[in-house]
Amino acid sequence: MTPFEFRSKVRNGQFREPTAGHCGDFAQANLVIVAKAYADDFFRFCFLNPKSCPVLAVGEPGQWDMAAIGTDIDIRTDVPGYYVYRDGRMVEERTSLQEIWQPDFVVFAIGCSFSFKQMLIQAGIRLRHIEQQKNVAMYRTNIKNKTAGPFGGDMVVSMRPMTAAYAIKAIQITSRFPAIHGAPVHIGNPAEIGIGDIDRPDFGDAVSILPNELPVFWACGVTPQEAIRTACLPIAITHKPGYMLVTDIPNSTLAVF
Amino acid sequence: MTPFEFRSKVRNGQFREPTAGHCGDFAQANLVIVAKAYADDFFRFCFLNPKSCPVLAVGEPGQWDMAAIGTDIDIRTDVPGYYVYRDGRMVEERTSLQEIWQPDFVVFAIGCSFSFKQMLIQAGIRLRHIEQQKNVAMYRTNIKNKTAGPFGGDMVVSMRPMTAAYAIKAIQITSRFPAIHGAPVHIGNPAEIGIGDIDRPDFGDAVSILPNELPVFWACGVTPQEAIRTACLPIAITHKPGYMLVTDIPNSTLAVF
Repeated sequence: MTPFEFRSKVRNGQFREPTAGHCGDFAQANLVIVAKAYADDFFRFCFLNPKSCPVLAVGEPGQWDMAAIGTDIDIRTDVPGYYVYRDGRMVEERTSLQEIWQPDFVVFAIGCSFSFKQMLIQAGIRLRHIEQQKNVAMYRTNIKNKTAGPFGGDMVVSMRPMTAAYAIKAIQITSRFPAIHGAPVHIGNPAEIGIGDIDRPDFGDAVSILPNELPVFWACGVTPQEAIRTACLPIAITHKPGYMLVTDIPNSTLAVF
Repeated sequence: MTPFEFRSKVRNGQFREPTAGHCGDFAQANLVIVAKAYADDFFRFCFLNPKSCPVLAVGEPGQWDMAAIGTDIDIRTDVPGYYVYRDGRMVEERTSLQEIWQPDFVVFAIGCSFSFKQMLIQAGIRLRHIEQQKNVAMYRTNIKNKTAGPFGGDMVVSMRPMTAAYAIKAIQITSRFPAIHGAPVHIGNPAEIGIGDIDRPDFGDAVSILPNELPVFWACGVTPQEAIRTACLPIAITHKPGYMLVTDIPNSTLAVF
């Protein structure tokens, strides 16, 4: 199935599940929608925090198509799940934004680690959360985001346990992909970045770390979601976690060297 | 001082010290000399173990100049210290090979981590052994070399303690330089690669590892020296450890991307 065909199924209500594993050769994106009054600050927040918020595309106010990242995208209908936040609280889960769309909405598509997952597996690196059919483990850290307007907070990271040799290879591979979070931000001792209990992730599922493995931590697309939430905007929208926007961008084209 | 001028001082007997810190923008090389009868096996050994034995240049039998890596090099006189091995034992330390040169000697110049040291420092990474004016700590491991003829044994590694963030950066930097050992071979738990006591290196000097640091291990040019020694050749020659061949190759030109 092409990404275009996949999005059509979403738009027609035939697909309402997590998108991991679908159209695996193409980049999936985190979605953030804020009103024009906050869009400039949010764009600057992304610029200042490129590891957690790598912008793949940004729309004009009111624009719901995103030709730069996919044919005939309608951002109001082509994501299989949306969260609506009002005053910083998630108040509604939706499958379409058509009824609540505002002419001042600005859409941000932000790179997602689903893409580099593909690269790692192709390099022979086994990912435990995939093998165990779990969501990746994610943690709040004490790494402060650079702030812009109301957007701030701390970095959220995802963690994948690996042997040292695979960790080195994973650093090499992901360094080539700054648009999908790039190189890890930390390896080893979780306490160094403020993670108290590695067995209790703040989001996703715990996975075991074997005695010969190191935890490897990447900046995570949940970071902008948390920043959106804590900014307490009158209204903001994100994708439902795991229910991503599937783009037409081949992952391989995101490599910078 | 240019590398050419530096080598002239060595040739004239005016320099008989470790070469670290001299002509720092230019690659220094490990030296291995074996008789033609063993050269093919040794060349294949290097090919099979490129992380520890990255060949910068190899001579014809009897050839003591190496135009590919430096103007007017005379390998018999331009290294400030030589070790001579007979039947696997270091039997003599010399400052010239002129009296013992054989027409069947084949010269190998092998990349050296002195070069990437420069790259790391330029990237703002502090290296404890440099700051403490020590030799880098080196360890025998249980990582088996691929064997070729009489050459085999285990990999020797050098270790530099770093914070996780600097370790990630150091992996990115050294990955660009396969000719000078490339990316690390291990990070973290020394026992994983057979190192029993990190405070007691097999070569060089111990340095402390701070609580927020990881030990980062690179393949080391002592590996081929150990392979030469344990191969018990009738005669073999290496540089004296730390007393390297200074080449005309700018370190920066060794980057592959």
